[in-house]
Amino acid sequence: MARRTGRRPGNPDTREAILVTAREVFAERGFDGASIRAIAAGAGVDPALVHHYFGTKDQLFLTAMNAPLDPREVLPEVLTGPPDEIGQRLVRLFLRIWDSPAGTAGVALLRSAVSNEWTARLLRDFVVTQILRQVTTHLALDPAQAPLRASLVASQLVGLAITRYILRLEPLASTPAETLVTAIAPTVQRYVTGDLTDVFDR
Amino acid sequence: MARRTGRRPGNPDTREAILVTAREVFAERGFDGASIRAIAAGAGVDPALVHHYFGTKDQLFLTAMNAPLDPREVLPEVLTGPPDEIGQRLVRLFLRIWDSPAGTAGVALLRSAVSNEWTARLLRDFVVTQILRQVTTHLALDPAQAPLRASLVASQLVGLAITRYILRLEPLASTPAETLVTAIAPTVQRYVTGDLTDVFDR
Repeated sequence: MARRTGRRPGNPDTREAILVTAREVFAERGFDGASIRAIAAGAGVDPALVHHYFGTKDQLFLTAMNAPLDPREVLPEVLTGPPDEIGQRLVRLFLRIWDSPAGTAGVALLRSAVSNEWTARLLRDFVVTQILRQVTTHLALDPAQAPLRASLVASQLVGLAITRYILRLEPLASTPAETLVTAIAPTVQRYVTGDLTDVFDR
Repeated sequence: MARRTGRRPGNPDTREAILVTAREVFAERGFDGASIRAIAAGAGVDPALVHHYFGTKDQLFLTAMNAPLDPREVLPEVLTGPPDEIGQRLVRLFLRIWDSPAGTAGVALLRSAVSNEWTARLLRDFVVTQILRQVTTHLALDPAQAPLRASLVASQLVGLAITRYILRLEPLASTPAETLVTAIAPTVQRYVTGDLTDVFDR
């Protein structure tokens, strides 16, 4: 456990202690329920030091779960443009990120979430609070339908990541990204904006 | 390593030694390249003993990878019936199996495949040789298109299993199976029999 006094900013032990505590608190209480104050108290440091090292609660969350990137930096390019092409933009961006160096961190994160219930909680919370909320708000989806639509999208994209980058199932693993965009974008488009009356009327 | 002599059939050490060797040989050479003879030699036993314990090579493969069930026992109900409803039958069967006690073994298998490259190889080989070959043959799919179509199906179904049973993303994790059949069957149907000209012409 890190001690509060006598450490200069940037001390690696203190940083690491804050991150360990942050993972616990985020996993236990969820992103919304966690506070910088509680994390600081758990790590035995001043809240100001947590802000100093990690910035906002969002930024601390991204660092704590080793997120390969900040969704807020890339989501605008998906959300901007014709709504009936959002499936295409989303699958294209998804593949571009996973095919890039950030994909290595993505593989590590996904592997960890599959084998570890705590990381799974963090990842769930990450997807819901950092990605889906923004998408739902931006597209003004029916709030009664948005959560299931979003998790259907997640089911296809998580499956794409697992089969292409982890299980490496051929020929999907070596198919050019743009071919996969053509194949998978209609699925994502239907989940986001398609008529799912028969799904929601059941 | 098991010894050949002085063991009666059913000896747990010998059985386990055969299974350990079988996993190695299947992972190294693939299902098609592996032989009962090579596995028996690796385990230091007579091939007849391998057959005696485990039956055919297919059955040994299923046992070696802790497959929750034999695809040949359940695939006929997917393959029999109108071809334009195969998506529905496949997603329904998939969810029925994963929602059953066999689902627990499925979760263990998928977790292991995601964290372990050798199990991933076994699972890939399992999917290709035990499931996809049968489906492709039965539906008489264009051999040039069948492998990508099949791996697109795998991407959606693996993603469904991971998000519903391992990450437990809500509301998908607690949505009734028949609602998910309605939502996801059209995706699978398109991947299997839909017009993917724009995908294959790229």
